[in-house]
Amino acid sequence: MAIGIGLIGTGFMGKAHAMAYRSARAIMGDVPDCRLVALCDTPMANAEKFRDQYGFEEAFDDWRRLVEHPLVEVVSVATPNMLHAEIAIAALENCKHVWCEKPMALTLEDAEAMEAAAKAAGKVTLVGYNYLYNPALLHAKELIAEGHIGEVIHVRGYFDEDYQADPDLPWTWRARVRDAGLGALGDMACHSVSMIHELVGPIESLIADMQTVYPTRALADGSGRAAVENEDAATAVLRFPNGARGLITTSRCAWGRKNRVDIEVHGTKGQISFHGERMNELRVYVNEGPMARQGMTTILTGGAHPPYGNFVPAPGHQIGFLDLKTIEGAELLRAVAEGREARIPFSEALKYERVIHAMAESARNDGKRVTI
Amino acid sequence: MAIGIGLIGTGFMGKAHAMAYRSARAIMGDVPDCRLVALCDTPMANAEKFRDQYGFEEAFDDWRRLVEHPLVEVVSVATPNMLHAEIAIAALENCKHVWCEKPMALTLEDAEAMEAAAKAAGKVTLVGYNYLYNPALLHAKELIAEGHIGEVIHVRGYFDEDYQADPDLPWTWRARVRDAGLGALGDMACHSVSMIHELVGPIESLIADMQTVYPTRALADGSGRAAVENEDAATAVLRFPNGARGLITTSRCAWGRKNRVDIEVHGTKGQISFHGERMNELRVYVNEGPMARQGMTTILTGGAHPPYGNFVPAPGHQIGFLDLKTIEGAELLRAVAEGREARIPFSEALKYERVIHAMAESARNDGKRVTI
Amino acid sequence: MAIGIGLIGTGFMGKAHAMAYRSARAIMGDVPDCRLVALCDTPMANAEKFRDQYGFEEAFDDWRRLVEHPLVEVVSVATPNMLHAEIAIAALENCKHVWCEKPMALTLEDAEAMEAAAKAAGKVTLVGYNYLYNPALLHAKELIAEGHIGEVIHVRGYFDEDYQADPDLPWTWRARVRDAGLGALGDMACHSVSMIHELVGPIESLIADMQTVYPTRALADGSGRAAVENEDAATAVLRFPNGARGLITTSRCAWGRKNRVDIEVHGTKGQISFHGERMNELRVYVNEGPMARQGMTTILTGGAHPPYGNFVPAPGHQIGFLDLKTIEGAELLRAVAEGREARIPFSEALKYERVIHAMAESARNDGKRVTI
Amino acid sequence: MAIGIGLIGTGFMGKAHAMAYRSARAIMGDVPDCRLVALCDTPMANAEKFRDQYGFEEAFDDWRRLVEHPLVEVVSVATPNMLHAEIAIAALENCKHVWCEKPMALTLEDAEAMEAAAKAAGKVTLVGYNYLYNPALLHAKELIAEGHIGEVIHVRGYFDEDYQADPDLPWTWRARVRDAGLGALGDMACHSVSMIHELVGPIESLIADMQTVYPTRALADGSGRAAVENEDAATAVLRFPNGARGLITTSRCAWGRKNRVDIEVHGTKGQISFHGERMNELRVYVNEGPMARQGMTTILTGGAHPPYGNFVPAPGHQIGFLDLKTIEGAELLRAVAEGREARIPFSEALKYERVIHAMAESARNDGKRVTI
Repeated sequence: MAIGIGLIGTGFMGKAHAMAYRSARAIMGDVPDCRLVALCDTPMANAEKFRDQYGFEEAFDDWRRLVEHPLVEVVSVATPNMLHAEIAIAALENCKHVWCEKPMALTLEDAEAMEAAAKAAGKVTLVGYNYLYNPALLHAKELIAEGHIGEVIHVRGYFDEDYQADPDLPWTWRARVRDAGLGALGDMACHSVSMIHELVGPIESLIADMQTVYPTRALADGSGRAAVENEDAATAVLRFPNGARGLITTSRCAWGRKNRVDIEVHGTKGQISFHGERMNELRVYVNEGPMARQGMTTILTGGAHPPYGNFVPAPGHQIGFLDLKTIEGAELLRAVAEGREARIPFSEALKYERVIHAMAESARNDGKRVTI
Repeated sequence: MAIGIGLIGTGFMGKAHAMAYRSARAIMGDVPDCRLVALCDTPMANAEKFRDQYGFEEAFDDWRRLVEHPLVEVVSVATPNMLHAEIAIAALENCKHVWCEKPMALTLEDAEAMEAAAKAAGKVTLVGYNYLYNPALLHAKELIAEGHIGEVIHVRGYFDEDYQADPDLPWTWRARVRDAGLGALGDMACHSVSMIHELVGPIESLIADMQTVYPTRALADGSGRAAVENEDAATAVLRFPNGARGLITTSRCAWGRKNRVDIEVHGTKGQISFHGERMNELRVYVNEGPMARQGMTTILTGGAHPPYGNFVPAPGHQIGFLDLKTIEGAELLRAVAEGREARIPFSEALKYERVIHAMAESARNDGKRVTI
Repeated sequence: MAIGIGLIGTGFMGKAHAMAYRSARAIMGDVPDCRLVALCDTPMANAEKFRDQYGFEEAFDDWRRLVEHPLVEVVSVATPNMLHAEIAIAALENCKHVWCEKPMALTLEDAEAMEAAAKAAGKVTLVGYNYLYNPALLHAKELIAEGHIGEVIHVRGYFDEDYQADPDLPWTWRARVRDAGLGALGDMACHSVSMIHELVGPIESLIADMQTVYPTRALADGSGRAAVENEDAATAVLRFPNGARGLITTSRCAWGRKNRVDIEVHGTKGQISFHGERMNELRVYVNEGPMARQGMTTILTGGAHPPYGNFVPAPGHQIGFLDLKTIEGAELLRAVAEGREARIPFSEALKYERVIHAMAESARNDGKRVTI
Repeated sequence: MAIGIGLIGTGFMGKAHAMAYRSARAIMGDVPDCRLVALCDTPMANAEKFRDQYGFEEAFDDWRRLVEHPLVEVVSVATPNMLHAEIAIAALENCKHVWCEKPMALTLEDAEAMEAAAKAAGKVTLVGYNYLYNPALLHAKELIAEGHIGEVIHVRGYFDEDYQADPDLPWTWRARVRDAGLGALGDMACHSVSMIHELVGPIESLIADMQTVYPTRALADGSGRAAVENEDAATAVLRFPNGARGLITTSRCAWGRKNRVDIEVHGTKGQISFHGERMNELRVYVNEGPMARQGMTTILTGGAHPPYGNFVPAPGHQIGFLDLKTIEGAELLRAVAEGREARIPFSEALKYERVIHAMAESARNDGKRVTI
């Protein structure tokens, strides 16, 4: 039986979810079929347009009708962040599985409520940390787990983009805390946190600072300027339980960076690094063999790095961002079919939320150490 | 009315076609719907497995039944090269549109017959030169057309992989001329030719050499060794009508290269280069402004490079190989719906075939100049 | 009249000073001649060997005799760090100009005493922040000063190497505070501080953490293990008076990094970055022109970036580490001849020392904010 | 006894020779001393200026007086190419050792006469193929010799610059055959030939084409335009005695390339490549270990790659172009002191000249194969 899908939101992430559902089985083979039952967007004309384009059966402009739809088994929450909590909780209360985009919610309290709802409902949940499904990252994880670079001693996560770098961009709801919650921390740094958790493990404590580069922006209607209430950039220095250290740094005002979700992991025997703008490459250095032959090796992902080969059998031909989402969607559908927990359920993603909120808390308290 | 699709072949390219058909409309919006009517593969079990996986309605193990299927309007030819000509011609004779993978055929004569059949049928044809649909390449083409690098004076096309680099790989049909035709020229160099045609224009004449690195390979059954009849590597020096010069070089024995489909175009005002293993980047140098500030600029493709934005609105997030095929499939479907010629019809692709066969001819004649 | 030179130390930096003195005038043309009067090393056999090799007139194994030598006008202090303060002060008290390697001293108190001695003596002093003389950095400084990337909003300095990455390296004096003072902060991070000062300006306050990766190391004589008393790695989050933020991170245990003295400066109009392992390149992104053509430009230094052209007239042919030292030495000799202050005198370098000691202080106090 | 040096020419290469003589012993330790006896340039004022700057004892404006000078034992020929043959032969006839810049001469006949003179004189000769002394190249040579990449099957040499890329540059003597001989072949491609000889061995035959991009250039005095008689670009396809193949391509009109003296060597087990604009790096791929971990390794040269460590003990700190010349000069001085042949004597360099002249000959004959 095909799994019934309901999708809320049709933008960047809405489209990515739609494509993932459309492609997961055809790409993977061993993923259950899904049925694109219902799509929700506003206004109704948009919902209908994308229902047609993405191939859904029904269109709604009220998400409540979608989460109550009897044929919908999985709800994809790809709305603006401010709606995540309410929708996800409602979906869970309607006994739907939920695939929710990150960050979970605007506040830690809401994220905790989502996690509680997931626990109560006992349904599959999955938060959209798509970079964790990159075959390059999966290979990094395997190498680290096998001790290829020894014991991890240091890690650095970077996430820079330039979508708010232009001082002349008009003010939007993204700048208001009650609409957007955190800024760069919620948009980007939570990805770095997720990668650090996967490759190194949970963070014990941190000190942090954050920065609003442009304190006000002009209103689009020319009526004046409004405050930017959340952070454009943030940096934390990390401690891990085993003594390892690290940092996270992020900026949405970094001209020239389009998707710099980089990570470098230092071990006692080597180093692994990944550069988000070259997502089909992994860099590895290992202290093995004669020093004269040691160097940073750039691995191009290929069939030897599952599930790359499901997309293209030939190495170096490259997968793209949407393909990551397809791998993520396949994981969700498999978890639903198998009745098991998915990778990165609400309970795991909540840990990442705690870290970004800890960064904000430390920053608000002049860099005071916050234990997580 | 949805366009009826028949797909022959389910491997690397068969899957790519299937995914393109599944995704083109959802990605692009303005592409006609298609109906996945029939899929053909052998043995029948395979055909049924992939019919199910890729979402086709019917399965065949005889391609003749597929090309005669009344609901099939477009035939995708994604079989081994030796079948291209026969199937494509049969499909055209059955008044089907044809999307055929490259190279067109094993011999120039067969390719010419295909072109004649296309002309006679008056149907849409398109040969799978997928790299031409890369937004980075499209941008390069636009920059060159606008004179951004001045007049083109020199061009170099490279295509290296290492899928035949290992001397211990067993002999396969790929090594036999009557099964595979050309070697590296047909697998790879024809792509370089296509890019050169798009960015610079047709080649006037050339001198060339080719090389069979491993003259024999062990038979898989241990019964001895068989000859490798076609080229592992080839290089040509090119002349263009306007006086520009260039080269094409290719090897299927280049360890470490996985998809080095690179091109560099030198102009009187600048240079543009593209590296296939970093397909979301374009490098541009222009002699403008103070020398101290001049350098090679690495552009990351994004929404400013259509149709990248149909996949991901955010720049630098990257598209993958299958996405190129989706763009190509969208072009095919639009051409069918609009009743117009597609980009790279048989008549255009035949020009590329002439060039690789001219390279082989020159090489067989000790490098004698061949005019195209 | 040639300037009389005395050099103390013959290792990495001693040789670099010797070569700088030998080359500065021949490279630059407009630098005064110097006379290589005396070289000091221990034991005497070493001093004599290098006197001969480097072309000095006299050899000493007692630095006091060198700093009192009447023909010596400039003293190069290229000894282990623990001797810097004593020698530099003695040289100044003997009315010598002093070119001292970084860091100035093991403690901030000693560095302050050096600065006081310099003030009292009124002689030229210069601390060896060689990276500041790189034509690429000089160009970056000029671009920033001209507003090429707008107002600076964020800066990140990195300095990683792997000279202490191997857990099996034996314990050395480098690990003992009374011999070596700080660890990675003194060896590397002070360079990052110097680059940040040049490109952005002084730091206002910071929070920091540091890490000793290997708390003990085996004694070389097999008699047990001894403590590593100083930091292998450190990270600080920075604030600048104008509201800009940034970070410094450093590790001497970063496998694969040989000279990663990188810096990236984010501005309101662009970004500039420099990678120490590719010291002849500068990367610049500016938000100018159509978005489709924007990208990170890699400038190869050349004659347009003085004084590169004094070494090689052809761009992209590259200068090396020793050439930086030659530029630095030329600055020293010119300052002596012109009776003016050199770039990076003790008074300026002391500011950098204050920053690394502030990092250590914050780290020792659980990340408490330290104002500089 | 210090070796007496006479230097003719004070430009790019003249300065490089002067610096090499000044530095070789101080850098290497085990190189004999040299005495900078005489420098020749025109007009006399220049000779005197550079005598003073480079530290020579005497200045001449007539090179004949220098080659006859009794204290001069080695003559450095760093003049425009048109004077190489005459001066070198005269120096040899005066029983001087000769360090001559490349290319040897304007014509093959002159180069042969130089070689004959060298043979007759029995003195040390060395032609300035500086890239062969790069520790990265020396390491590549060693790896290839050890079979690290298996048997060599293919090689590609590239040398592009943009010093003649601007169509508005005025005509100079460089464009006239009787003054300059070959164009890009003599300036650049001969370096590629030298690298191919060192890493792979002699070339057996080739086919080639060449191109004059700008057939005329404006005379600087505004009196009209004059012909560019030699090639701006050239490409050859190579055959080697053992069946290996390859290519050489070069252009002096390649905007953005400042020193693209690249080489890639394909073997049966791996690939090695070197990029001239990143001269402290070597790229190596070897088919060893699991495919998932294979990649191109970027080695940063360091102490493990002699004689890098003579310049800087720390890896990744980088040497520069002048340092290559110092290594070359050290080789010359050692050969003189030891009474042995130097690397790349006239007899070896003559082989490289034969190759570039064979390229020109093939190109002039419509690409006819030329056996060397």
